[in-house]
Amino acid sequence: MFGSVSNSGGLGPDYTTPTEWLRGQGRCSDVVMSSRVRLARNLAAHRFVPQADRTQRAQVLSLCRRAVERVGPLRWVDVHTAQEFERRLLVERQLMSRQHARGKLAGGIGGPDEPRGLAVSLPDERLSIMVNEEDHLRIQVMRSGLGLADALAAADAADDMLEEELEYAFSPRFGYLTACPTNVGTGARFSVMMHLPGLKLLGDIDKVRRAAEDMSLAVRGFFGEGSEAVGDLFQISNQTTLGKTEQVLLHEMEAEIIPRVIDYERHARRMLVEKRRMTTLDRVYRALGTLRHARLISTDEAMELLSLVRLGVLTQLIPAADIKPINALLLFVQQAHLQQIVGRELTQQERRSERARILRERLADVG
Amino acid sequence: MFGSVSNSGGLGPDYTTPTEWLRGQGRCSDVVMSSRVRLARNLAAHRFVPQADRTQRAQVLSLCRRAVERVGPLRWVDVHTAQEFERRLLVERQLMSRQHARGKLAGGIGGPDEPRGLAVSLPDERLSIMVNEEDHLRIQVMRSGLGLADALAAADAADDMLEEELEYAFSPRFGYLTACPTNVGTGARFSVMMHLPGLKLLGDIDKVRRAAEDMSLAVRGFFGEGSEAVGDLFQISNQTTLGKTEQVLLHEMEAEIIPRVIDYERHARRMLVEKRRMTTLDRVYRALGTLRHARLISTDEAMELLSLVRLGVLTQLIPAADIKPINALLLFVQQAHLQQIVGRELTQQERRSERARILRERLADVG
Repeated sequence: MFGSVSNSGGLGPDYTTPTEWLRGQGRCSDVVMSSRVRLARNLAAHRFVPQADRTQRAQVLSLCRRAVERVGPLRWVDVHTAQEFERRLLVERQLMSRQHARGKLAGGIGGPDEPRGLAVSLPDERLSIMVNEEDHLRIQVMRSGLGLADALAAADAADDMLEEELEYAFSPRFGYLTACPTNVGTGARFSVMMHLPGLKLLGDIDKVRRAAEDMSLAVRGFFGEGSEAVGDLFQISNQTTLGKTEQVLLHEMEAEIIPRVIDYERHARRMLVEKRRMTTLDRVYRALGTLRHARLISTDEAMELLSLVRLGVLTQLIPAADIKPINALLLFVQQAHLQQIVGRELTQQERRSERARILRERLADVG
Repeated sequence: MFGSVSNSGGLGPDYTTPTEWLRGQGRCSDVVMSSRVRLARNLAAHRFVPQADRTQRAQVLSLCRRAVERVGPLRWVDVHTAQEFERRLLVERQLMSRQHARGKLAGGIGGPDEPRGLAVSLPDERLSIMVNEEDHLRIQVMRSGLGLADALAAADAADDMLEEELEYAFSPRFGYLTACPTNVGTGARFSVMMHLPGLKLLGDIDKVRRAAEDMSLAVRGFFGEGSEAVGDLFQISNQTTLGKTEQVLLHEMEAEIIPRVIDYERHARRMLVEKRRMTTLDRVYRALGTLRHARLISTDEAMELLSLVRLGVLTQLIPAADIKPINALLLFVQQAHLQQIVGRELTQQERRSERARILRERLADVG
């Protein structure tokens, strides 16, 4: 049977509504979809995940779960026993990594049955904590728009509460110790998901990518590491955490680098609207036309077209009262959410058809 | 100033309405847009057009015009003095060839000022007579749908009336003599303009092309010789006229070859609707979506998309009361008609934009 995840109980997750990173609010939300802070932490006196056996991982899971429960009213998911379908929903909502869903670490370590967990704050889904991903603990805080400082404060607060219960692996010289050397130090990664259709249309994305890489930032796709940039959504994040304080990293990202990319993108959009108005109008309306008429559509094509429609609405080339429904569709066209909305398991062909139907219905009033 | 062709006088042409070949009526009009019979005739004791000088051509023009006036109430156009814009309109309506508009024959003979004429029956535009195209006289009769026999009867009637006034170059052995040897004999060419989107989508057009060529038929594009097949419109016509009577030629085309192609196309459409229903539905609706949303569109793209919409309407995948408005758009997206409808001269960019606007407006209620 199909693993539809129901909303029984007022505290259960509602997978048919958008999540934090799609709220379309916060600073610079025309360009910045969301900001995310992730802290990597490990328990002292316990083997790191890649070196641990199943029993040791189960012990860590148990310890961490107890500590996590002190952080607040979080929903707990035993990922190793969760239905495949719910794991996909959680990945699509960006509450956990694809790696955590699979249970496999880089190098093929582990497997789907390895003990691991996820805690999610409800209903806002702003805080999530992965247990036994690459590190014992991965604390993630998400904010709509540009809000790394706020996210860091919330992550630090969660971190402090956890630390009251747990002893972290910490070196006075190196800082927090982590499974992968790139995370040693603060253990912090700052990521900003940016929507850059203007730069993409002008062919300037590679410039941004090179500039970011010169500043030791990584530019990744929609689902993070190893994923393609679909829908002109790019994640920009710091690569190393050693040798800089969280505050320095934060300032570099939030006050210097990201604002520069935001300026580039806004400039690109102005260029498109002022100097290439007709061509851009044509592009965004054709995208809307295809979304409103297609009978079969893949996730990737839907996201590419939604990206253009989002550009159209934000530049006021397409009249629309609200950007939120467009944002929400970026999530709802994903495989698991689509099935959740339809309420049953779908073959690939059915997904392409139902995706098209939902897009037609929800975009009927746009433009 | 822009050469808008007005409708002053009740007998003037109305270039903002469709013409015979777009009426969408007659036999097999789901597949056959129109049937055309063309008779090539030359005057005895006058040099053929390619060998004649300007004075000789002017004499022929004068003689022929007088004879043409006896055929019936035809509108006469001195093509060599007509505005470029009206020449384009006449070509787009398929009332004369592109070659006749330019005045240049194959091999670069002649020029735009060479004396030549066109007579058109109004308001139906079913009969047109070119004077001093490749031959002294080219009598053309057009019928919507499959109607070669009817067209031939009308062409023969016009031919008989002309022959009362003119002495034709005729050889008891070879038949009618013409400038190009391929037309010697009956001087008749039978052409059928077919809409073959089903065969195109199934990738079977080349089979039809090869089969037609095996039967000494030519498969050409929308504007005849040397033109590309845009909008999945193909003209099928006989290549030689020597050694067969008109009746034999006619029977081969109308009773054997064309019905076979019609069957192929109808079979292809059934295949698409029954076996590839969703994919075809998706294709035809995407075409409609682009036509209804694009802000800039070229003639060729518009015709390709209109072809798919026409397929959609004829297969009832797209609900529409009437095929005529779709047919009409195949003409109205052409450069000169577009400007005629808008009522002023347009730059290339404006044409792309106005074409898109007209398509949006006229397709608003389809589907």
